[in-house]
Amino acid sequence: MNTKTYVDQHKDRFINELIDLLKIPSISADPAYKKDVIKTSEAIKTSLVKAGCDHVEICETPGYPIVYGEKIIDKNLPTVLVYGHYDVQPPDPVELWDSPPFEPVIKNTELHPDGAIFARGACDDKGQMYMHVKAMEYMTANNELPCNVKFMIEGEEEVGSESLGWFLERNREKLANDVILISDTGMIAKDVPSITTGLRGLSYVEVEVTGPNRDLHSGLYGGAVANPINILCDMIAQLHDENNHITIPGFYDKVEELSKEERAEMAKAPFSQEAYNKALDITAEHGEKGYTTNERNSIRPTLDVNGIWGGYTGEGAKTVIASKAFAKISMRLVPDQNWHEITELFQKHFESIAPASVKVKVNPHHGGTAYVTPIDSLGYRAASAAYEDTFGKTPIPQRSGGSIPIVALFEKELNSKSILMGFGLDSDAIHSPNEHFGIWNYLKGIETIPHFYKHFTAMSK
Amino acid sequence: MNTKTYVDQHKDRFINELIDLLKIPSISADPAYKKDVIKTSEAIKTSLVKAGCDHVEICETPGYPIVYGEKIIDKNLPTVLVYGHYDVQPPDPVELWDSPPFEPVIKNTELHPDGAIFARGACDDKGQMYMHVKAMEYMTANNELPCNVKFMIEGEEEVGSESLGWFLERNREKLANDVILISDTGMIAKDVPSITTGLRGLSYVEVEVTGPNRDLHSGLYGGAVANPINILCDMIAQLHDENNHITIPGFYDKVEELSKEERAEMAKAPFSQEAYNKALDITAEHGEKGYTTNERNSIRPTLDVNGIWGGYTGEGAKTVIASKAFAKISMRLVPDQNWHEITELFQKHFESIAPASVKVKVNPHHGGTAYVTPIDSLGYRAASAAYEDTFGKTPIPQRSGGSIPIVALFEKELNSKSILMGFGLDSDAIHSPNEHFGIWNYLKGIETIPHFYKHFTAMSK
Repeated sequence: MNTKTYVDQHKDRFINELIDLLKIPSISADPAYKKDVIKTSEAIKTSLVKAGCDHVEICETPGYPIVYGEKIIDKNLPTVLVYGHYDVQPPDPVELWDSPPFEPVIKNTELHPDGAIFARGACDDKGQMYMHVKAMEYMTANNELPCNVKFMIEGEEEVGSESLGWFLERNREKLANDVILISDTGMIAKDVPSITTGLRGLSYVEVEVTGPNRDLHSGLYGGAVANPINILCDMIAQLHDENNHITIPGFYDKVEELSKEERAEMAKAPFSQEAYNKALDITAEHGEKGYTTNERNSIRPTLDVNGIWGGYTGEGAKTVIASKAFAKISMRLVPDQNWHEITELFQKHFESIAPASVKVKVNPHHGGTAYVTPIDSLGYRAASAAYEDTFGKTPIPQRSGGSIPIVALFEKELNSKSILMGFGLDSDAIHSPNEHFGIWNYLKGIETIPHFYKHFTAMSK
Repeated sequence: MNTKTYVDQHKDRFINELIDLLKIPSISADPAYKKDVIKTSEAIKTSLVKAGCDHVEICETPGYPIVYGEKIIDKNLPTVLVYGHYDVQPPDPVELWDSPPFEPVIKNTELHPDGAIFARGACDDKGQMYMHVKAMEYMTANNELPCNVKFMIEGEEEVGSESLGWFLERNREKLANDVILISDTGMIAKDVPSITTGLRGLSYVEVEVTGPNRDLHSGLYGGAVANPINILCDMIAQLHDENNHITIPGFYDKVEELSKEERAEMAKAPFSQEAYNKALDITAEHGEKGYTTNERNSIRPTLDVNGIWGGYTGEGAKTVIASKAFAKISMRLVPDQNWHEITELFQKHFESIAPASVKVKVNPHHGGTAYVTPIDSLGYRAASAAYEDTFGKTPIPQRSGGSIPIVALFEKELNSKSILMGFGLDSDAIHSPNEHFGIWNYLKGIETIPHFYKHFTAMSK
């Protein structure tokens, strides 16, 4: 039976199984959800066993466990390692969701006339990860598995994958493979398949500015003491110049500069600034001078405040000067920026621009290195052929602005290339309220993945 | 019986009655506490009746009620109108309180070896307002009331006293008086009595910056859309120049400039920058260039962010670009700035500096006009004589940085001067966690107030 027929016959069950998985709030960033994260790892274990994996186990780590499973059919055949994550982003701000984030519902949208599943994690990454589990089920149930396969599904991707590095170091042999397959990215459009060939790195920090040792009455003290909120705003404002270049000394030193030819190639991807603005309801573009929107969110590094808080934020008015103000700041990095180095440069610079009247703390959270994969590798060519089989089109290689910090880690620790076959869309609202994943995309992913195994095995001979 | 003896005999009851009042969380800014605010007005009514007032009533307004009571002994004698407020500031951040804000406790401190009552509202203004109720009790119980008295205690001072203006307009005759007496300010030190002769005005606004129409993934969109938090920080930073002057065009146009002589007179007040910095644990002073700390927080207008929020503020990391960012901003004003005009200037300027890539909303909250009282008035001289009686020292006239917007309103609507006899200390932490009021100060206030009535009546003859 071919993949399409199998998917058609089983699609209702595939959807319901994913919905069950989405009901568990596996928020790795919030310790309050620890039990749910653990419960999700157990659900993944069960699903791998059912899909036909052997030796399925929940591997303990210093943090959340990693679920491992494998099917070794012949040591002389190539081995595909599937990576995914079962943890999700916090759903905040919850009040902006049209339906509760952990009560999945199917709704039709303009882009998804066949329905989309709305829930936190629907796309990132439970839905995309589960496509691989179901593709595995197809291959084992129909005797179509052409090579060896290993699964490694982690629970800390949204908080920096710290335990994964620990796990890789200790399990190099167990995890040995010829290619790593990941679905945690998107494609350009439903009729424009694409393979992600570049990812940005990340440095995520939290900053704290302390003024007076206690909250003060803004009438009695206003104007005579440094207000940490005003100071924090001032310091954040200084991090960009009038051209939206980042002002941290040394920040751009190692940034890979693309050639005119490479930028011209990128510019060929279909894109409408007008449609982009309309989709986001913005009236003007914004970003680093000298670059296009698509360049700004892929080949250029950035600095964004992801959260800020301080003082009175309740209803009504409180005339207070806060003792402290806080911000979470992340920088997206490009090849060849080193995230440890960038974190250090940020810290040094941020401390240096603090006026003498406040104290400043910079707490690094986590980070990751940017990654670029060549399009002439065996893995890329196999993936390209798989899309041709099911989409009838050659996929476009695309640099993404997002970060999967562990891709660079895989190359270092396991010495193999990752192939990023993403089936999500930009409009899926991952990390936002009303995250969703198109049912068409989900099923198309399950249908396409076995073709990769077939081509990769054939090309490896 | 003189006031000191009476206070000594009844002090335990005076303290316990205040503690009972402090247990009711009359937070006017938060609608969740509506019942408690109302309950407090009823407690005030009961206490005025017990203190000997006639015609005590809870007067309904469009907002929280105003408690009124009076004792008219002879229409030919002068009338003192006592103003105070029974509402309190929100206690946030609650986690910084050493004891729950509405469970008053007495603790000894270095400054208060006789103990201080720790609770929200202990000083501002329940404690200081209640001194007047107890002074009234003394005068009626001992036949020492030398003139007529009226009480007007409101419940919206911490949110802009909007209903008070409505009430004044409709009750000019009922409230007719010769002087208004208020204790809602501080004095320089326990051994340095002072009378507040100037108050700053206020304009309080809330701003909202909107970028994209939903929260976005900072990897996929970072660098290519305007981040409303970064933009808000940038806009706030632009509100001051490098000398900490406020940059809003026209902001300083009507500011009363003090003469060299007046500033020299001010500089004579005892003050140590070193002790000030030590008390607040700050390492450097901060403020408008060309002015001293005492000038910055009294005769100069200011602009402070009182609260800021946006994006992810929970534990851990979330790589999000928020759709919206918010701030609460207040400006302290000096004579002769008009707060309506300043609010408008702010709004116009803030909107004008917004980049095209975001939408900006400015919501005015409330405001008030600055006030200066002459030191040769009958009321001031009577207050000065009262302090001399009980402190053995002439009080120092002092300009305060705080705002009691209604003082200017009283002059306009009731055509009378307000005398600000404050018994609080800068260290009382009003509007902050661990607000407290020294028992010595509380009892000294009750002791001193009847002397004011005596002198004011005598001087009026």
